[in-house]
Amino acid sequence: MLNLQCDTPQRWLAQVDEHLDEILIDHAHCERKAASTAMNLMFAYIEREQLARDLTPIVNEELEHYRMVLDILKSRNIRFRRLRPGSYGKQMHELIRKLEPGRAVDRLLIAGVIEARSCERFVKLREHLPDRELAEFFGSLFESEARHYSTYVRLAKLFAPDDTVRARLGELMAEEARIIQEGDPLPRVHS
Amino acid sequence: MLNLQCDTPQRWLAQVDEHLDEILIDHAHCERKAASTAMNLMFAYIEREQLARDLTPIVNEELEHYRMVLDILKSRNIRFRRLRPGSYGKQMHELIRKLEPGRAVDRLLIAGVIEARSCERFVKLREHLPDRELAEFFGSLFESEARHYSTYVRLAKLFAPDDTVRARLGELMAEEARIIQEGDPLPRVHS
Repeated sequence: MLNLQCDTPQRWLAQVDEHLDEILIDHAHCERKAASTAMNLMFAYIEREQLARDLTPIVNEELEHYRMVLDILKSRNIRFRRLRPGSYGKQMHELIRKLEPGRAVDRLLIAGVIEARSCERFVKLREHLPDRELAEFFGSLFESEARHYSTYVRLAKLFAPDDTVRARLGELMAEEARIIQEGDPLPRVHS
Repeated sequence: MLNLQCDTPQRWLAQVDEHLDEILIDHAHCERKAASTAMNLMFAYIEREQLARDLTPIVNEELEHYRMVLDILKSRNIRFRRLRPGSYGKQMHELIRKLEPGRAVDRLLIAGVIEARSCERFVKLREHLPDRELAEFFGSLFESEARHYSTYVRLAKLFAPDDTVRARLGELMAEEARIIQEGDPLPRVHS
């Protein structure tokens, strides 16, 4: 359903076990960046009213998740702070083509691919984490991340024909799998 | 209640009468910029959790208003498009001090002052516009703009003592009144 081309490697779960606090802090940052991304996209293409219609609920949900993660940090006495970003987001954004309409297609698809990977990892966390409260929290996010993925792919089709979008999604998913398999020594949601 | 130091001049209502479509388009832009401002502020000061708590509902409301204005444009067959920005926002932002915590105080207060002016103008439009549907729409926004103003002033007090914030608010309101009285030949919500 998510079209991801590789499973999260076992290595990542070892990073989670060793640096759970840092992963949680990074998760808060991921939620706020997801809210920014959705808002930036709707305002970058104001002439496409459908983006405002479909991305507004995503902004609202991501901000709600952000608040939920902040509450979790607070309840665990983990101080929310800035973190050096992992390499995943940067590498994904380097795949965005410069010229329109390819640029719009790529920005939307990459936002979707990141949601898809988050979704896959949240399911992994639900199964893996011994802390049931946390496991259930990640489980509760699964559905919305999957839905956001579908929304982004559908919106990309406003800017290019369906088969062009599908082909580009395949390319981006292949690149994403490569980036995930390389990994990142910094413990992050997408390392 | 709003602490504005001048009333909207009659000149502005003449601009509204002559360029209502352009003012409505600019209003949509104002709502989306207000959503961006609220989100940028909460993410600029992530260590202040209260900002996330109080600005999230503002982001949501501004995006809802944005959608409402887009619907109004659509129902009137006005094409939403980019507009050359008026000088008000730029002049207001030039008042922001460079050094923290003054910068945070100024960013929050200026966001609040702009809401206060919108609020005052929406009341004017409610009274002035012969089109009752539009007049009621602007009337319906009044309460939230006033509430946002209060929220921003209250949040500024997280960064400086109450009397410092009150004094700075007085200075910024004086500057704002000067900018409004100068006016702007471009017909805009804040011209």
